[in-house]
Amino acid sequence: MTQLEAARKGKITPEMEIVARDERIDIDLLVRRVAEGTVCIPKNVRRDFASPRGVGRGLRIKVNANIGTSTTYPDLKDEIIKLNAAIEAGADAVMDLSTGGDLTSIRKVILDRCAVPLGTVPIYETSVNVANERGAITRITADDLLDVIERQAKQGVDFMTVHCGITKESIKRLRDQGRVTDVVSRGGAFLVKWIVVNDKENPLYERFDDLLAIARDYDVTLSLGDGFRPGCTADATDRAQIQELVILGELVKRAREAGVQTMVEGPGHVPLDQIAANMMLQKRLCEGAPFYVLGPLVTDIAPGYDHITSAIGGSIAAMNGADFLCYVTPAEHMGLPTAKDVKEGVIASRIAAHAADVIKGIPGAKEWDLEMSKARKARDWNKQIELAIDPVRAKELRDQRSGGSDDVCSMCGELCAMKVVEEYLKK
Amino acid sequence: MTQLEAARKGKITPEMEIVARDERIDIDLLVRRVAEGTVCIPKNVRRDFASPRGVGRGLRIKVNANIGTSTTYPDLKDEIIKLNAAIEAGADAVMDLSTGGDLTSIRKVILDRCAVPLGTVPIYETSVNVANERGAITRITADDLLDVIERQAKQGVDFMTVHCGITKESIKRLRDQGRVTDVVSRGGAFLVKWIVVNDKENPLYERFDDLLAIARDYDVTLSLGDGFRPGCTADATDRAQIQELVILGELVKRAREAGVQTMVEGPGHVPLDQIAANMMLQKRLCEGAPFYVLGPLVTDIAPGYDHITSAIGGSIAAMNGADFLCYVTPAEHMGLPTAKDVKEGVIASRIAAHAADVIKGIPGAKEWDLEMSKARKARDWNKQIELAIDPVRAKELRDQRSGGSDDVCSMCGELCAMKVVEEYLKK
Repeated sequence: MTQLEAARKGKITPEMEIVARDERIDIDLLVRRVAEGTVCIPKNVRRDFASPRGVGRGLRIKVNANIGTSTTYPDLKDEIIKLNAAIEAGADAVMDLSTGGDLTSIRKVILDRCAVPLGTVPIYETSVNVANERGAITRITADDLLDVIERQAKQGVDFMTVHCGITKESIKRLRDQGRVTDVVSRGGAFLVKWIVVNDKENPLYERFDDLLAIARDYDVTLSLGDGFRPGCTADATDRAQIQELVILGELVKRAREAGVQTMVEGPGHVPLDQIAANMMLQKRLCEGAPFYVLGPLVTDIAPGYDHITSAIGGSIAAMNGADFLCYVTPAEHMGLPTAKDVKEGVIASRIAAHAADVIKGIPGAKEWDLEMSKARKARDWNKQIELAIDPVRAKELRDQRSGGSDDVCSMCGELCAMKVVEEYLKK
Repeated sequence: MTQLEAARKGKITPEMEIVARDERIDIDLLVRRVAEGTVCIPKNVRRDFASPRGVGRGLRIKVNANIGTSTTYPDLKDEIIKLNAAIEAGADAVMDLSTGGDLTSIRKVILDRCAVPLGTVPIYETSVNVANERGAITRITADDLLDVIERQAKQGVDFMTVHCGITKESIKRLRDQGRVTDVVSRGGAFLVKWIVVNDKENPLYERFDDLLAIARDYDVTLSLGDGFRPGCTADATDRAQIQELVILGELVKRAREAGVQTMVEGPGHVPLDQIAANMMLQKRLCEGAPFYVLGPLVTDIAPGYDHITSAIGGSIAAMNGADFLCYVTPAEHMGLPTAKDVKEGVIASRIAAHAADVIKGIPGAKEWDLEMSKARKARDWNKQIELAIDPVRAKELRDQRSGGSDDVCSMCGELCAMKVVEEYLKK
């Protein structure tokens, strides 16, 4: 039974109990939301891990970190270091996007060591396998894809990105639209090529019922991928993107009917003033399904700083309904991230997420800020470091720049505003 | 004649010509906006520098970098390095907030080397002088303050923060309100202490006409300081903050009548959902005066990353009417920034500013993003580096993580989505 099916029967699973306790929300409310599909709890029935997470309505905004080898950097060791960096920095989920090396064994090691939900994009493995075996990804068959999905499900993958909305219809709209950066989703690109070359419909769309059957068996949460997410602000919210979203909305309905947990993925690069509308649209078209966004990046001109461009967009997205932020690292658009980039990316996304939690009234969010502010007012540096989103970084800064004072910091020294007024504002 | 007075007479100054050309806006429109006080051009009549800037309605969002010695780090050399870092990173203005060392000669060196408008907070120098000479900042006289302001004006300072809205009335409201972090503005704190200890009205408020006379003589733009800006999200948009803003609105009117260019300073720490209202309120209460915000920081828990918390808030603020962003560095709340922090802070604020420029239709903003996106699509790495907001950083990343390819990056290698589809989406 999936979490969704259990919830529909009013059954409380151990995972629901963990999520309700962690989030400090009423368990009956949580069960209702899982039942209606506005919350999912990605956890494969075959896998056990320390920290199941709920994603969706009324819950803390979650953060995902992508790791994984590439053909250029196929070393598993590096990716394990990144996995640890992501978890230590507070990632709520991790996706293994490996495309280099022995993908099955890499995934096994990562699954074994990952304390949070783990996601994949099965078309990557399928493409790499078929390209190696048969020379071209266009030779993928529908069975190849479903086989890989089933093998990954058996291995314990908790959620999978499947680009089911790339169809002949949405490709036609993309082509008619005309775009600056066409397709920037890898999975989306493979499927476009496959569909165009083979002149056949997307197997993930045509055989959606078979996909649902596998997902249901293992309680794999489907993350309906946005293969046509805009890759630059000029392409945002265009007819190609919205056509795909309309199709994904239909598929959410079918997945729910089949008892399969579902999220929907979203943009991408989006100008500041289009973000709120994008969130509303997804919630409406996909009937409240949890929304998992990559960014959004609010400008295209900041390679090296795209953790910041996406923290801006992610915060506004989360304020307007996004539930799950996929991090973007400072290496985005330039190369595979290092472990340092992974940490920077997770922290930036967590800041964006937390800023939204504060205004959404998530239990503990505002209180955290308040405690920090009281520690700041009291000039209690140990407490400030302890409460910092990155205590290591806060301690480094304090150690390096305290100016030798136990009391004030080196910005203002004894001219510290809070210190100057403290005896003069007592009532 | 000030820029404001000139504009009222329909006179086009050389600075207006420079600003109109840089911003690619109609000169007559610019003159009208300077005349109505919705745009200011901070430039002291005694100073010449390469790049005058306009701040306000319809113009590119500007970024200010604070530098300056502290008692802990009084070395001028470090501050010159920071000045250069700020300018190189693209700051549109610099404030010298020095409080350590020989303030007059430090300011002279900075004024000589600064290619953009330079601002100060004269109460810092007054407080340091009086504390040294007479043992307590409460012994400042109104003449002390006006003398320092006049000396700084003669030296060529282009804009000055004056906390004229800290009055007995606003202090009473602050006290009645009760706050977590009370006062976090240094100038604000000095004035609160002075007013409470001496039981007298704020000299900057009482002698506002004398202040205006000096500002008019040298065309110093007044930046009406927000001494009661919230120092934590829990204190945001409270009665103390808004009371001060109401008073500042009245002073804007008086300054305009006296022919003095004026900006208004704003928060501070503000939760995501209060930013838009704060911007609207300032524009209405201050009759469209340019709004200069510090942050706003959307959460309190991220020391070490407050350039990110403030880039989030700054972007939303700029989208909703803020005209001028004061940067926040990663060292904020922990110590005086290093040159590296200065650069990080300027770039983060510029990203926030530019994201707003894109949606405001600022000439060249959207075009910059489009050019970058085309270079990205073409996998033209030299062009991407050239167009990056920080070409040095972009080049470093590309050099370190290219994976040896001239064509693709090491994130996806030959699986690059844009490359995969390029021949399949031709019409």
